[in-house]
Amino acid sequence: MLAQRISRLTSSLVRDILAAASQPDVISFAGGLPAEDALFVPDAAGLAPERLRAALQYGPSEGELRLRELVAQQLNSLGLSCGPQQVLILNGSQQGIDLMAKLLIEPGRRVLVEAPAYLAALQAFRLFGAELDGWSRVEGISAEAKMKEGLQADTCMTYLTPTFQNPSGACYSAAERRGMAAVLDAHPGIVFEDDPYRDLAYDGPAPAPLVSHLRAARWVYQGSFSKILAPGLRLGFLVAHPELFPHLLRLKQAADLHSNRLSQLLVTQVLEDGLLAGHLARILPDYRARRDVMAASLDRHLGGLASWTLPAGGLFFWVKLAQPLDSQSLMQRMLRDERVAIMPGSAFFAQPADAAYLRLNFSHASPERIAEGLARLGRVLRSQRTAS
Amino acid sequence: MLAQRISRLTSSLVRDILAAASQPDVISFAGGLPAEDALFVPDAAGLAPERLRAALQYGPSEGELRLRELVAQQLNSLGLSCGPQQVLILNGSQQGIDLMAKLLIEPGRRVLVEAPAYLAALQAFRLFGAELDGWSRVEGISAEAKMKEGLQADTCMTYLTPTFQNPSGACYSAAERRGMAAVLDAHPGIVFEDDPYRDLAYDGPAPAPLVSHLRAARWVYQGSFSKILAPGLRLGFLVAHPELFPHLLRLKQAADLHSNRLSQLLVTQVLEDGLLAGHLARILPDYRARRDVMAASLDRHLGGLASWTLPAGGLFFWVKLAQPLDSQSLMQRMLRDERVAIMPGSAFFAQPADAAYLRLNFSHASPERIAEGLARLGRVLRSQRTAS
Repeated sequence: MLAQRISRLTSSLVRDILAAASQPDVISFAGGLPAEDALFVPDAAGLAPERLRAALQYGPSEGELRLRELVAQQLNSLGLSCGPQQVLILNGSQQGIDLMAKLLIEPGRRVLVEAPAYLAALQAFRLFGAELDGWSRVEGISAEAKMKEGLQADTCMTYLTPTFQNPSGACYSAAERRGMAAVLDAHPGIVFEDDPYRDLAYDGPAPAPLVSHLRAARWVYQGSFSKILAPGLRLGFLVAHPELFPHLLRLKQAADLHSNRLSQLLVTQVLEDGLLAGHLARILPDYRARRDVMAASLDRHLGGLASWTLPAGGLFFWVKLAQPLDSQSLMQRMLRDERVAIMPGSAFFAQPADAAYLRLNFSHASPERIAEGLARLGRVLRSQRTAS
Repeated sequence: MLAQRISRLTSSLVRDILAAASQPDVISFAGGLPAEDALFVPDAAGLAPERLRAALQYGPSEGELRLRELVAQQLNSLGLSCGPQQVLILNGSQQGIDLMAKLLIEPGRRVLVEAPAYLAALQAFRLFGAELDGWSRVEGISAEAKMKEGLQADTCMTYLTPTFQNPSGACYSAAERRGMAAVLDAHPGIVFEDDPYRDLAYDGPAPAPLVSHLRAARWVYQGSFSKILAPGLRLGFLVAHPELFPHLLRLKQAADLHSNRLSQLLVTQVLEDGLLAGHLARILPDYRARRDVMAASLDRHLGGLASWTLPAGGLFFWVKLAQPLDSQSLMQRMLRDERVAIMPGSAFFAQPADAAYLRLNFSHASPERIAEGLARLGRVLRSQRTAS
């Protein structure tokens, strides 16, 4: 009696890991949670009853006009030319993935994704019946050439996280973005750029959004306030090509009428009062320090056992194990015996990967616990090498 | 390139009416908005930074445990036996409709709905490809018999708003609920009870939820805080049969990870502090008074032109016109020439209706404007009678 799509709801592995990782004695590298100290605590004065009143009645499905204007301003300053009438406020950017799946996917439709790619996007696309094709960067071949190989004539959507990707941490250069945009302009599919990590840049600002280089392809771009302010607010946004916007707006209305107005009020005030830059200036040094502690700990404890690249932004190290271990078994052993939560890389691939990977988050655990957790991981990996 | 379902997104008529109705010179009977004075203004002390902190990080997809416990308590007191582990907090109850559509509907699946039924549910079910079958009460025949006629062997879901329905205002008696539950127990389809108006009862409390009488059928029941506290909070809940809950939880996670925690914090406090009863005691007399003004104005201005029943709760009169006018043309004329917004009844039917209906909301316009708006409506209906 249930719809066919329910059989495609994937296992609750990730939910189980995250539940286990929230136990206080567990050192968690598993989630993508901001540090507690990095959460933006709204000013209660901004929530005085006379201001709250405006947020209590039903609101527009598009979102609050002033917030849409502020988002559009910000995007234009990044080089993405758009107007506020193209901005749709979301209940977190996960909702943008759901709306895009509804817009484009039906059983058997092909979606091109990076390998690896954001897990919850793969799950949502699969739920609607997509056939996922993955493509990977390969040393010595351009990203655009590899991506082009993955595009089929009937690919309906190309989903990309070009900036400090979850899980890989990778960020395409401006030249790569231009090359990829040219390939996508020559294809009828729709381009969906997911960009929640842009502002978490530790070594200089990220290049302009990939979709800003498109000339012909229709596109949707989305961002989130979860990683830079507070995920509990559940607030994100998308900007859509004018042909796509009216459909996405109606899908949003059918999904939940409109986004929470309290959160919209709060975030509007933060942006209006220019508080975001100061908040970022406060949290970025701490995140950079944690990243560097993780890099040093990886060097110290996983040298020879794995390889990785220093991420220039975002929240994750993507670690390739030298030995072809089963990353899910390793995750289970680490959690059970060592009280360290890691995220197995296999969950991030549309097709089985060429090697074993782990995704390690550095924003949530304290520097001391990062060092301790990686010491335990190194010990287990060394013991497994000896055992095999 | 767009998914087939996009062609089933219905027209923006209702959005257009609601946009027009929000102009200050328009007397609006069109929406389902609470009165401005009836909105619950949260206590700013409850939003002090030290309390807000708990709402900033990612939260559980199920919703906050304490809120789920309070909802379950409330439902048990209504006669619906359930535990907090069956409660899923929603971003407004429209989201429950989206999740249920995902759970059950694929193109061609049959859904049984009341005729009339809640417009946005019909739209969401159609979006996923449902074939909608409508059934109506008929004088002299029991509701259970009429509903049974509508059930097909392959009906996957029966969607019901048994209590102060939008748009009809109808409320099934306890005996009717028992009879309908027996019919539904003998059918394999899933029962979905939508119950956002229960607490807006003007002539005594509503009977226990229909699903509380089920013995065999699997069911989902949902409610909302939009009509009794504030719709801008976007907070509702569903309670699901244990077999269905895990799927709905994963669908919720795929849709937007979890609901806004600020709103959950606020509503938890309201319930915990026992403030809801006092708030209802404050707003119900005002709503009852507006209902009675609308009833008197209908008697005065539409006598002989239409028929209606006094609703014992909810937010709407459902008015059957004596003449078979096109309710959409009437709506357009009323808005253009008279600056009165009404909702055409045709939008609430899965199949063309037997007569012309209007849905008139009495909660948003002031008593004076209710009387004036209905005088204008009566004048236009009389002129059309003369003209025809």
